[in-house]
Amino acid sequence: MEYTFILDILGVIAFSISGVLSALKKRMDAFGIFIIAFVTSVGGGTLRDVLLGVPVMWMQDLTYVYVIIITAVLAVFFRKKLFYLRKSLFLFDTFGIGLYTVAGVEKGIAEGLPAIICIALGTVSACFGGVIRDILCNEIPQIFRKEIYATACILGGFSYFVFLKLNLPLSLIFIFSGFVVILVRLSAVVFKLSLPSVYKKDEDIEDYW
Amino acid sequence: MEYTFILDILGVIAFSISGVLSALKKRMDAFGIFIIAFVTSVGGGTLRDVLLGVPVMWMQDLTYVYVIIITAVLAVFFRKKLFYLRKSLFLFDTFGIGLYTVAGVEKGIAEGLPAIICIALGTVSACFGGVIRDILCNEIPQIFRKEIYATACILGGFSYFVFLKLNLPLSLIFIFSGFVVILVRLSAVVFKLSLPSVYKKDEDIEDYW
Amino acid sequence: MEYTFILDILGVIAFSISGVLSALKKRMDAFGIFIIAFVTSVGGGTLRDVLLGVPVMWMQDLTYVYVIIITAVLAVFFRKKLFYLRKSLFLFDTFGIGLYTVAGVEKGIAEGLPAIICIALGTVSACFGGVIRDILCNEIPQIFRKEIYATACILGGFSYFVFLKLNLPLSLIFIFSGFVVILVRLSAVVFKLSLPSVYKKDEDIEDYW
Repeated sequence: MEYTFILDILGVIAFSISGVLSALKKRMDAFGIFIIAFVTSVGGGTLRDVLLGVPVMWMQDLTYVYVIIITAVLAVFFRKKLFYLRKSLFLFDTFGIGLYTVAGVEKGIAEGLPAIICIALGTVSACFGGVIRDILCNEIPQIFRKEIYATACILGGFSYFVFLKLNLPLSLIFIFSGFVVILVRLSAVVFKLSLPSVYKKDEDIEDYW
Repeated sequence: MEYTFILDILGVIAFSISGVLSALKKRMDAFGIFIIAFVTSVGGGTLRDVLLGVPVMWMQDLTYVYVIIITAVLAVFFRKKLFYLRKSLFLFDTFGIGLYTVAGVEKGIAEGLPAIICIALGTVSACFGGVIRDILCNEIPQIFRKEIYATACILGGFSYFVFLKLNLPLSLIFIFSGFVVILVRLSAVVFKLSLPSVYKKDEDIEDYW
Repeated sequence: MEYTFILDILGVIAFSISGVLSALKKRMDAFGIFIIAFVTSVGGGTLRDVLLGVPVMWMQDLTYVYVIIITAVLAVFFRKKLFYLRKSLFLFDTFGIGLYTVAGVEKGIAEGLPAIICIALGTVSACFGGVIRDILCNEIPQIFRKEIYATACILGGFSYFVFLKLNLPLSLIFIFSGFVVILVRLSAVVFKLSLPSVYKKDEDIEDYW
């Protein structure tokens, strides 16, 4: 479908730019910047494909590689201007995770896997590029500390199976559950929502063990 | 076999709790805690299955996912009590690595691989969940510094092939070599055994290079 | 071919020793030292094989495992002498990346993948052992900061397809493109070449975001 292709490319661009910024902060060289942009964009989908034992998507379709190379080069050159694009980038990123989540869920369904595993695969597709980026940058993955990002994917994946039970047509399910991801994330950011913390004030876990 | 199923579940519970504790120490959020519990439990087996190119075990059997979710929730709620369970948890963990090692060895044999690779696969199954946990928590893997854990797996895997040479029945080999892992680890902890250090006192490796 | 086998083993030895030195610096124990030596040697090829979905090379041929074990033991015992071997080790390492790059490119071609993916696979084979080593040692991968290493692999992989267009015989292409990798890296080190930096003096990336 044409519109998913455009969303996919916008997501890849937003994820690549987020990778370039992380790599620049660590003062990596040109090769490092490209690799971080690459794993941020396609790392989640790669992990999903390796877990599924199916061919890795970016080896089959060179569009990803070209878009990442061009984005990384432009992002390095215009890095001072990226700040002014931050709202667009946030939107692209949000559309990206919506699309990646649903695409991951559908790949799991195509392999005949149970719903909970499909939801996990959707979340992995959308979120683990950022996890690999943070590991390569020697940081604790951000997503393990700011939970609404992953929660949006899980809720979107869950809604996919709710819509499926309601016998909606597949193309509508695709759009609706993608929008669930996008709406949850946008509301979380706009209304500063977060899940209740599991920690008590001043709690020191080291004391328990 | 029924008893291996119970040991497997006990191992998953002990590994999940160890993951929850690591994640709490890093003040991760609910999603991060679940992911760390998950990779600690099934990360080693997942790496083994990906290396073997066979279907990943937790995608085929949802028991793992449910046990990890329930354990993670309970462990977060009752985290102050976990300290009092530490001896049981240590025993569960030890049974877990015994079972995972032998299961890993047998998966390698089923793929027709040579003994040394099967022993490596058993050790990976039992130990690399903890390695991935430590990488995600941005620490040097503990197991690379406290060797008896891995050594127990290697010796157990080795004993599997010794018992095989002795023509013992397979079910006995399974039990005996699992017990080798358990005994080596228990004795190491009880008698505070460790392999001789490769370092001299006050040795500074940076000086050599 | 006999000479590629010798180069392969020399590369494995050089990579293992580099792993042993990294592990010693982190004061890892015997198990940790062996694992770091192992992933430094065969981690890149393993990632390549997993991405390709083909059997992992060191599971099929035990030579790697034996060479790494022997090298790791000798490197630990004679660690004080390694400094005097540094020029030989640098040469072995350079021959190693030349060979690994071309072998990776050819594996990609054998799977019918496009040229740019084959070049990426060659670079992954030669460089990602070091990346995994650095992640396990809790460091930002060196290769993301010192670019000529990876650049040599990319240029060598590119030259493979130029020579292919020129209709050279395959055995010559293998040798010539391996030599491109070796020459680029040797010249970079001898003449202290590096790619132009993407950073301006005193530039602080944090300011942009």
